[in-house]
Amino acid sequence: MNGAQAMVRTLADAGVGVWFANPGTSELHLVAALDGEPRARGVLCLFEGVATGAADGYGRMAPDPAAVLLHLGPGLGNGLANLHNARRGGTPVVTVIGDHATGHQRFDAPLQSDIAAVAGSVSAWTGRPVTAAEAGKAAAEAVAAARAGGVATLIVPADAAWSDGGEVAAALPAPPPEPVADAALEPAAAALTGGEPCVVLIGGGATRREGLEAAGRIAAATGARVLCETFPARLERGAGLPAVERLAYLGEMAAAQLDGARHIVLAGARRPVTFFAYPGLPGDLVPDGCQVHDLGADATGALTGLAGMVAKDAAPALQVAARPEIPTGALTGETAAAVIGALLPEGAIVSDEANTSGLWLPGATAGAPPHDWLSLTGGAIGQGLPVATGAAVACPDRPVVCLEADGSAMYTISALWTQAREGLDVTTVVFNNGSYAILSMETTRVGAVPAPPEAGTITRDMVDLSRPALDFVALASGMGVPASRARTAEELAAQFGKALAEPGPHLIEAVVPPLG
Amino acid sequence: MNGAQAMVRTLADAGVGVWFANPGTSELHLVAALDGEPRARGVLCLFEGVATGAADGYGRMAPDPAAVLLHLGPGLGNGLANLHNARRGGTPVVTVIGDHATGHQRFDAPLQSDIAAVAGSVSAWTGRPVTAAEAGKAAAEAVAAARAGGVATLIVPADAAWSDGGEVAAALPAPPPEPVADAALEPAAAALTGGEPCVVLIGGGATRREGLEAAGRIAAATGARVLCETFPARLERGAGLPAVERLAYLGEMAAAQLDGARHIVLAGARRPVTFFAYPGLPGDLVPDGCQVHDLGADATGALTGLAGMVAKDAAPALQVAARPEIPTGALTGETAAAVIGALLPEGAIVSDEANTSGLWLPGATAGAPPHDWLSLTGGAIGQGLPVATGAAVACPDRPVVCLEADGSAMYTISALWTQAREGLDVTTVVFNNGSYAILSMETTRVGAVPAPPEAGTITRDMVDLSRPALDFVALASGMGVPASRARTAEELAAQFGKALAEPGPHLIEAVVPPLG
Repeated sequence: MNGAQAMVRTLADAGVGVWFANPGTSELHLVAALDGEPRARGVLCLFEGVATGAADGYGRMAPDPAAVLLHLGPGLGNGLANLHNARRGGTPVVTVIGDHATGHQRFDAPLQSDIAAVAGSVSAWTGRPVTAAEAGKAAAEAVAAARAGGVATLIVPADAAWSDGGEVAAALPAPPPEPVADAALEPAAAALTGGEPCVVLIGGGATRREGLEAAGRIAAATGARVLCETFPARLERGAGLPAVERLAYLGEMAAAQLDGARHIVLAGARRPVTFFAYPGLPGDLVPDGCQVHDLGADATGALTGLAGMVAKDAAPALQVAARPEIPTGALTGETAAAVIGALLPEGAIVSDEANTSGLWLPGATAGAPPHDWLSLTGGAIGQGLPVATGAAVACPDRPVVCLEADGSAMYTISALWTQAREGLDVTTVVFNNGSYAILSMETTRVGAVPAPPEAGTITRDMVDLSRPALDFVALASGMGVPASRARTAEELAAQFGKALAEPGPHLIEAVVPPLG
Repeated sequence: MNGAQAMVRTLADAGVGVWFANPGTSELHLVAALDGEPRARGVLCLFEGVATGAADGYGRMAPDPAAVLLHLGPGLGNGLANLHNARRGGTPVVTVIGDHATGHQRFDAPLQSDIAAVAGSVSAWTGRPVTAAEAGKAAAEAVAAARAGGVATLIVPADAAWSDGGEVAAALPAPPPEPVADAALEPAAAALTGGEPCVVLIGGGATRREGLEAAGRIAAATGARVLCETFPARLERGAGLPAVERLAYLGEMAAAQLDGARHIVLAGARRPVTFFAYPGLPGDLVPDGCQVHDLGADATGALTGLAGMVAKDAAPALQVAARPEIPTGALTGETAAAVIGALLPEGAIVSDEANTSGLWLPGATAGAPPHDWLSLTGGAIGQGLPVATGAAVACPDRPVVCLEADGSAMYTISALWTQAREGLDVTTVVFNNGSYAILSMETTRVGAVPAPPEAGTITRDMVDLSRPALDFVALASGMGVPASRARTAEELAAQFGKALAEPGPHLIEAVVPPLG
């Protein structure tokens, strides 16, 4: 058995069988090894950013991580932005990067670069097996590291893959989270019951049903306000689940949400800060004099323990089932959101990269049947289509809805091809407003210049996507995805309903005004 | 004047006025500063890999480097592969990456990552001005570093850009290359006149007319064989120029070219090695017992000096004008090359990422009117369309021809949108063979498995682009580029001729068989 075979079998034994891949010559023995492993599935992506984003989407939804196969340093570079998002979301991903054979590295051949330096910027763990004998063990360690929450990267020299002497390694148990001692929760419990205004800010694993219910009980018993981090990796929501408001993206709105809080209890979320810096404005969103209590790594366990201490008999307030009416007339971000809220199917997985056009989505979908909401964890755009792709591979029996901004869509548009190739049930709505609307808005917020249209020519150019207009119907058709264009709310409703009713991928270009 | 204004003006003073850009919030003061600088031009790209590749293409063709504006670490990641290619080609590029404001970095906001670690993998020089006062000086240093041949990277915190106190710095003179002393050339001269078989391997700056003529004189006088590195950044060629054969991509063919050589004189080229490692095959292509003589950094100067020593009165053999007949019938890599050779206009800039479909291009175009050939310097695919875009910005009066493989095209396909937006005169021919044909070929060469179609299902899948078929006519149309499809040699000839005759971008999808 060669090193590649040992690695592929070790990964399969550890539950990692799905490979999102864009291989090159130095990975071909790994590809061949996939053919020898009945539990392995190869999903070809036409660009590495699609592969890494798909692995992120898969890892958010599946019980096991996916592997992503990349070609040398440039392949890693192409996939880096979505690995950044996975890192920020704590998504388990096993990255496998082929390297030149060990004896070849001294030649500094054209494709050589410092893979480890780049990998280090996104990886919680990096392994570099040098021989076939080390390949299996490194693979087992990688899976354990990924399951602890993050990107685990294997850099595999071609000769470690092709040489004999590979040994399958047993899957390593993921260390269970440290049990949370009641004593550690006491400061937070005291804060919650002390009568001062409290916010419970949830994130990470605490945005699933169990954590939400515990947080909801705490809120019901103590009057604490529960907020969710701005960009949760996977938020369970909808009718019958405890509703939770997300911390706003805009610092001034987030500050208003936190205003007056004397205690912030962090449950899986990071200390709240603004997304960007703005001249003269604070980046730290914690109000003056407010104490912060961090519940640690096992946020769901801690919240459950805390609920037992302060909210024994309380029940969480649950979201009432409610959908908007299907609107008529002009298509705007608001009416589009109403259409989606009206029709979102039960069990949907929503990949949300709608950015400014998505402002009305949370409200319009809050009372829809239960669904999962996957958001832009690390802020690196180009995530939406790939994450939808990976989520659809992870959950073939659930409808996936991808809500995508025009500018962001163009980063990883070839995800549509993989959706067509794999017959994935993804309905993508691209909000085409012909601009980087968020940048247009940020232009004045950072105090750079007046916002377009008053700004200078270059500034206006840099936020303009209308010259020429992007035709997403043509783009999707070119990659085998049936597509249509909606210019009114009625058209969107008809097309969205039809797309949801048919299996396989569909794309709808929703023509909307900027920030409208 | 703020730091951004000082930086932009310093760059303009140093000759850097073209900015290929995909900015975000942290770069908006730099964008605003472009509006205040009459010599600045902003070229929006929808993906950072397009921006970096365009800066590479610009830097290969223009007397001055371009700047490329990227958004934080993920933006750099997206642009990394084409910066790798620029690094490998020694192309001057000034990379400007916005970072969070210095006071914001301690918050570890969602988009934060280790930019310097990633930048270090591609940069010959990295500067991190921390205050507005340092911004201008750092910019001047960056240009000087880039002009020395490579990627110079400025990481600019938002507050260094937006704060007052910016100071314009004077352009730094690029140090002239060390003059080459005749004494340093004597070993090479002795080798060339010693009667043993010699190869002069040219690369870097020596692939322009001056270096080619010196090498050609040496060959004429001494009988040395002149070869060019496999992937020159910019090779001047065509009728009336000294013809030069390129070192083959496949190791066994390259070894045959070098077989018997007792001396290899490196003039701007690196020691020849195989592109990848193959089990049991040597990676070093220098024959046993062959001596290697490196002429140093100023390859053109050294070659000229060497020609003065060993080839005083010799004249180089010049390529005779000759074009293929326009073929008829089936469209293959071979007949497509003949069409292109028959019609390639004088002064054309060819961006070549045709990969396996391009096998016949060098032969078919050798006797075409003088033109420049830009190739895949670092082997990171996704270069062709962006490099063509940047070359067209650099040389608006010259026709640009982009010869592109289907798989590689999909990495940075949105370059077409920038071509349409800027009205660039680029004629792209996408060779659609429905496969990663080079990987299919490499599968057996590395000894992984039998080549497709005998290979296993996953291996076959990983090289297959036919399911679904990519429709490049639809893709181009979706980005505002007029497009057509050619299925016969006659169709390609008609469409290629028409595209060349019309200004602005065009795309032709040339449907060809894999490796045919």
